[in-house]
Amino acid sequence: MVKVTFLKIGYIGATNLIDALLDERASRKGISVRVISSGCKMDEEEALDAAKLAASVPSDLYVVVSPNAGLPGPTAAREVLKETGKPIIIVSDEPSRKTAKKLGEEGFGYIVVYADPMIGARQGFLDPVEMALFNSDVIRVLAITGVLRLIHSEIDKVLAQIDKGEEPQLPQVIVNKEAALQQSGLENPYAHARAMASFEAARRVGALSTEGCFKVEEREIYLPIVAAAHELMRHAALMADEAREVEKANDTVTRIVHFRSGALRKKTQLLGKFEK
Amino acid sequence: MVKVTFLKIGYIGATNLIDALLDERASRKGISVRVISSGCKMDEEEALDAAKLAASVPSDLYVVVSPNAGLPGPTAAREVLKETGKPIIIVSDEPSRKTAKKLGEEGFGYIVVYADPMIGARQGFLDPVEMALFNSDVIRVLAITGVLRLIHSEIDKVLAQIDKGEEPQLPQVIVNKEAALQQSGLENPYAHARAMASFEAARRVGALSTEGCFKVEEREIYLPIVAAAHELMRHAALMADEAREVEKANDTVTRIVHFRSGALRKKTQLLGKFEK
Amino acid sequence: MVKVTFLKIGYIGATNLIDALLDERASRKGISVRVISSGCKMDEEEALDAAKLAASVPSDLYVVVSPNAGLPGPTAAREVLKETGKPIIIVSDEPSRKTAKKLGEEGFGYIVVYADPMIGARQGFLDPVEMALFNSDVIRVLAITGVLRLIHSEIDKVLAQIDKGEEPQLPQVIVNKEAALQQSGLENPYAHARAMASFEAARRVGALSTEGCFKVEEREIYLPIVAAAHELMRHAALMADEAREVEKANDTVTRIVHFRSGALRKKTQLLGKFEK
Amino acid sequence: MVKVTFLKIGYIGATNLIDALLDERASRKGISVRVISSGCKMDEEEALDAAKLAASVPSDLYVVVSPNAGLPGPTAAREVLKETGKPIIIVSDEPSRKTAKKLGEEGFGYIVVYADPMIGARQGFLDPVEMALFNSDVIRVLAITGVLRLIHSEIDKVLAQIDKGEEPQLPQVIVNKEAALQQSGLENPYAHARAMASFEAARRVGALSTEGCFKVEEREIYLPIVAAAHELMRHAALMADEAREVEKANDTVTRIVHFRSGALRKKTQLLGKFEK
Amino acid sequence: MVKVTFLKIGYIGATNLIDALLDERASRKGISVRVISSGCKMDEEEALDAAKLAASVPSDLYVVVSPNAGLPGPTAAREVLKETGKPIIIVSDEPSRKTAKKLGEEGFGYIVVYADPMIGARQGFLDPVEMALFNSDVIRVLAITGVLRLIHSEIDKVLAQIDKGEEPQLPQVIVNKEAALQQSGLENPYAHARAMASFEAARRVGALSTEGCFKVEEREIYLPIVAAAHELMRHAALMADEAREVEKANDTVTRIVHFRSGALRKKTQLLGKFEK
Amino acid sequence: MVKVTFLKIGYIGATNLIDALLDERASRKGISVRVISSGCKMDEEEALDAAKLAASVPSDLYVVVSPNAGLPGPTAAREVLKETGKPIIIVSDEPSRKTAKKLGEEGFGYIVVYADPMIGARQGFLDPVEMALFNSDVIRVLAITGVLRLIHSEIDKVLAQIDKGEEPQLPQVIVNKEAALQQSGLENPYAHARAMASFEAARRVGALSTEGCFKVEEREIYLPIVAAAHELMRHAALMADEAREVEKANDTVTRIVHFRSGALRKKTQLLGKFEK
Repeated sequence: MVKVTFLKIGYIGATNLIDALLDERASRKGISVRVISSGCKMDEEEALDAAKLAASVPSDLYVVVSPNAGLPGPTAAREVLKETGKPIIIVSDEPSRKTAKKLGEEGFGYIVVYADPMIGARQGFLDPVEMALFNSDVIRVLAITGVLRLIHSEIDKVLAQIDKGEEPQLPQVIVNKEAALQQSGLENPYAHARAMASFEAARRVGALSTEGCFKVEEREIYLPIVAAAHELMRHAALMADEAREVEKANDTVTRIVHFRSGALRKKTQLLGKFEK
Repeated sequence: MVKVTFLKIGYIGATNLIDALLDERASRKGISVRVISSGCKMDEEEALDAAKLAASVPSDLYVVVSPNAGLPGPTAAREVLKETGKPIIIVSDEPSRKTAKKLGEEGFGYIVVYADPMIGARQGFLDPVEMALFNSDVIRVLAITGVLRLIHSEIDKVLAQIDKGEEPQLPQVIVNKEAALQQSGLENPYAHARAMASFEAARRVGALSTEGCFKVEEREIYLPIVAAAHELMRHAALMADEAREVEKANDTVTRIVHFRSGALRKKTQLLGKFEK
Repeated sequence: MVKVTFLKIGYIGATNLIDALLDERASRKGISVRVISSGCKMDEEEALDAAKLAASVPSDLYVVVSPNAGLPGPTAAREVLKETGKPIIIVSDEPSRKTAKKLGEEGFGYIVVYADPMIGARQGFLDPVEMALFNSDVIRVLAITGVLRLIHSEIDKVLAQIDKGEEPQLPQVIVNKEAALQQSGLENPYAHARAMASFEAARRVGALSTEGCFKVEEREIYLPIVAAAHELMRHAALMADEAREVEKANDTVTRIVHFRSGALRKKTQLLGKFEK
Repeated sequence: MVKVTFLKIGYIGATNLIDALLDERASRKGISVRVISSGCKMDEEEALDAAKLAASVPSDLYVVVSPNAGLPGPTAAREVLKETGKPIIIVSDEPSRKTAKKLGEEGFGYIVVYADPMIGARQGFLDPVEMALFNSDVIRVLAITGVLRLIHSEIDKVLAQIDKGEEPQLPQVIVNKEAALQQSGLENPYAHARAMASFEAARRVGALSTEGCFKVEEREIYLPIVAAAHELMRHAALMADEAREVEKANDTVTRIVHFRSGALRKKTQLLGKFEK
Repeated sequence: MVKVTFLKIGYIGATNLIDALLDERASRKGISVRVISSGCKMDEEEALDAAKLAASVPSDLYVVVSPNAGLPGPTAAREVLKETGKPIIIVSDEPSRKTAKKLGEEGFGYIVVYADPMIGARQGFLDPVEMALFNSDVIRVLAITGVLRLIHSEIDKVLAQIDKGEEPQLPQVIVNKEAALQQSGLENPYAHARAMASFEAARRVGALSTEGCFKVEEREIYLPIVAAAHELMRHAALMADEAREVEKANDTVTRIVHFRSGALRKKTQLLGKFEK
Repeated sequence: MVKVTFLKIGYIGATNLIDALLDERASRKGISVRVISSGCKMDEEEALDAAKLAASVPSDLYVVVSPNAGLPGPTAAREVLKETGKPIIIVSDEPSRKTAKKLGEEGFGYIVVYADPMIGARQGFLDPVEMALFNSDVIRVLAITGVLRLIHSEIDKVLAQIDKGEEPQLPQVIVNKEAALQQSGLENPYAHARAMASFEAARRVGALSTEGCFKVEEREIYLPIVAAAHELMRHAALMADEAREVEKANDTVTRIVHFRSGALRKKTQLLGKFEK
């Protein structure tokens, strides 16, 4: 039984469902998953407190998910976990690319996702419903462009190594458009290109949200910008959806499923068999 | 500072983001949120273990989210939390309607959501990507049809009562189409009707998934059924999306935002002011 | 020359075009079709009068189409026709499932269609235009999900038996999702699943219309419900349309055509030949 | 009690539901409706036989619906009915425009609909399913562009005159785009324009079907043409649908409902009251 | 180096980009392109002046693009060019079909495009933005239905002949639906049919614009008609777009590319090689 | 009569129709327009030759349109025109932002458009049809996001100054998202935000095209990237289209029309009057 504990500090798109990716049908033998989260907050105090709780959970692997891994909260959190001596993988968004090298040097694994954009967090715009819809769109883009496949594959590899008693090789991955799409399983070249467009549009969302949240002061200017960010995110999700619809129309949707043993098995035709 | 701890046992749609609903911009003073989860698994052993961890977290309120609250795992979990003497709200899906009365009698609050359907959890169909896409669709339906608004409003009410030192009145709500839509803020009557259709379609998804997962044995019969469930879920999300698009076109999107104080303030026109 | 007379008492979706299904290009030799209808009304008096007129038309086969075959009007009508001694097939909607067994015992053939839902027949909602649009949507669902193919195939079989002087074997068919889809000719598994979702959504429409028309009294409650029923019907039609579009994109649309002789011949590629 | 009998000889789009337009909720007092049809066939023999049956039904008004009223079958049919001395309204499609003047001179009323196009009746293309889908699209265009409203309004006027014992003034209407749209109730000018575009596209469908069915001999040439006709018809329906969706988004859908008395009452807002 | 000069007198859809069609990547050796245009105006004075300028440019081939080649301006313009003794190809819209024969007799080549409709040029409707959008739609239809391929192929043939020092054979082509579609490269038969429908819809646009601009005087009548023309044009473009999307989903988009040498090379699969 | 000559060197999106923007109905008195173009090529030799031709045309104003105004060809061309002593406005794309300051210092007016992206000019991808479709999409984005309005308004201002004999004040405008949207006339805030998203997506297209054309060497890497660029451009156009559709649904489309006098008059409701 390999024990994996997710520590979630604040929210990015990948925060959602990352633990569920490992065991989509709740049938996997041999792993036990715990999640500890501080909710939306990611200041140092909340992060530390949650991290201590996580550190108290017996774990063979920690996965820390947060916005910008370079911020004080996430940094403090992973320092706490580091003291457990257990392997740690950091999953974070594009601003973390500046911190990635240092993470590697300090022995952390990392997965830095470029298409997981900041939300339009302005009081005059964001309410719980808008927030949820944005996440719905981000999840769609992450799922179809290959990001979620990449994330769970990397974690699965480490789990397998731990399970075999090997020294785990932690991932050091910058998830740009090429890295993501390679995992997407999209076979039609136009679907592949459209998903790539979706990925890049999502990156642009992050730039708009950042501008609207941090660079502009006037309400009548930043409100249209954060709204534009969410409009673009909605279309990024639509593009991704169209890409998958093409694969469905060709009966070429790649499915890579966790069997009870934890083994991943692949199939393509909906009514077909798993590959051996 | 009111402390609220979410215990998540297995996954329903509302599992996603339920803690984030309380503090969408991570700026709310006066509450501290913790989440403990057992990931996808919800058997008694995992549930108990996670519940004990949650019980160890100092909390003024517990919210337990799980599929079918009548199952052994969720039942055991809430029994553990009950011993803390703290108020507990159960959030669960339609199969829990049979347990709801008993929950009330035992002093639990409950929110039973009818449009949060079971996933098509068949090995030949569900992989992490398909799972994530289904959740993306469910989140959309829950957000637009009023379910998420209802959930956070009910929790917010209890938090306010606790904050004032009052004895909290725990919600006892069956979230059927009328209860949900009343919270949706949809002003155009056709958008309202379309969202209602979305809600009911999502319920039908649950019936199909259940049939495909539990009532049919033959692979060539259950695969089309669980696929049909997910197709219907995708269209339920599209219907919900269309409903919101109408409101956007009329600039009548209701936004109800958490201010730093925790107060909820409403606005309608995107560039307009909050109501007083 | 086989003479078939359709008696239509009130309206369901299948009332439209059912006679046209037998001879889509008006070129079939060997059959003569008559239709007698009482329009929308289906009370006993109107039904009886129309049935007597139908009974006066020399016929080798009667097909009676009406809502709920268990109601007094349709019941009285088929009793009148029974006196002719000719074979009779009853075509009706889901509420007739309760009557089906009895119909069989009394020697009637029957085709009970589960995805042919009641209309939202409320005065504040239904006008002739709304009524026509609902029928347009229902026809689309019946056509694409296989229902219309099943109906004409069953009638064609009986016509062929009569033509050969054989004792006709009348159909006893409950058209649930499996029975319908089997006739749909949809080859792509996702198109097939989407059409199944369309079928089930249409059934849910019936539940909503029934609730809105019969179970709720307050105008402000039933109007949204019947509107939701029609919104869901529109989306059921869109789902069906999407399913067919996939088949068109793959050039795999099944066409089964009546030749002049009445023989049915099948083709798939648009520019291809008929199978032999 | 006014008795109106519909004689349907062959099929146009308006054949569907024309009798249902008079009593959409099956609740109207004071009229009794009968329909007699020869199915798809419209040759003289079938037409005459059906007409004789219709002539035997006691009626205060006859409405004859058929393709091209100038063809021998429809001509013979109305001659038979003429002998009853009862008022007769001819409803037919654009090719009948050449016959319209003569119809008027002979004392018939007429409604000649320009957007009710011929179907692509080629053996290699048209099967019952394709036929039904084409009709679904035509019904949608007729409903939204105002044609069905115009048809039932004209018949309703005559029924009212008969009911009062007046000499009925039979309609003499060419339903071109202006005549139709005037009845559409579409308030948004772009929705109105789009519906007009839909109407004209439907007319173009007729030209394509005619070319594909009668002017071209080579299979590899006429198959694309009739397929193009149906593609254009599908888009005409989509355009009409979009027009109505705009009205729904503005809550300005015109509804003109038959009350029990037969009176027509109008409303606009879905939750609003009928105008007085 | 072959020198080709385009003289553009007024605007049709094909005016846009016609010179760009010859050298899409600006990399072609061996040709030099000049364009002279009088902008939107096409009266005799402006046309003559522009033509004289064009005549002063050393050219091996002239291509004259204008609305209705039979009008005085375009006629005068080509007379001026004729004096250069160089080969001249006239590209114009459907009204030019009446002039085509005469053009041929006078030694001009011609390409008369039937799906390049007049714009809705009414003051109360057309502004620069609406004008640009109409052109965007027309370009899409011309591109996908094969018209642009046909135009550049015909000019390319003449350029090749001139390059070889041969006497050029000027094209005499009426671009009706068959001529266009044959060049479209659309392989799926429904995509082909839909593009044909798009082509015919575009022709109908021309009829509506003409009616709205020249045959109707009343503002409240012509405004809806020209608006309907543009609505239909938008849907014609959507139909064309759908046709191409089908080809993309099948990875069967035909690409015929100008190599540096001017040679045209064809490929189909996006990631495939050029045919030899 | 003010004479304006456009010199087009190579192609950007704004190259299309820029001259037509000034006189959309070809009815404007008081201006005469000439266009000289070198087609797609923009090397120094072609540019110079075309510029000399343009310089020979008597003009009161020159407008030079080209990609990247800093390249040798466009630079040489404007130097030639500069010798005429006439006012010159440079219209170009985002890479020109580096040259803009210098242009201003040298006395040129400039309009640098940020959402007019480079095309995916790779031999294995771009053929004349793909090129035309890309331009169709770019035109749509430029039209709806306000860019075309801004361009013609700026030129119109200069024309008016020249017409009055005033010293023209040449524009110095960087058309970023704020500058463009301010001219878009979009009233609904979500339509406005969606158009802004469209604008930014179009900018991202330019980044992808540049990467695919200049930064990547491997065919299997750059082909997906340029295809992604065009996919994103198509969705940028769809977003823009959706924005306009919202305005149409609200009957709030801004139209600013050139009257015969050259005066610009504005109207909003389609059937409404021009503002005074």
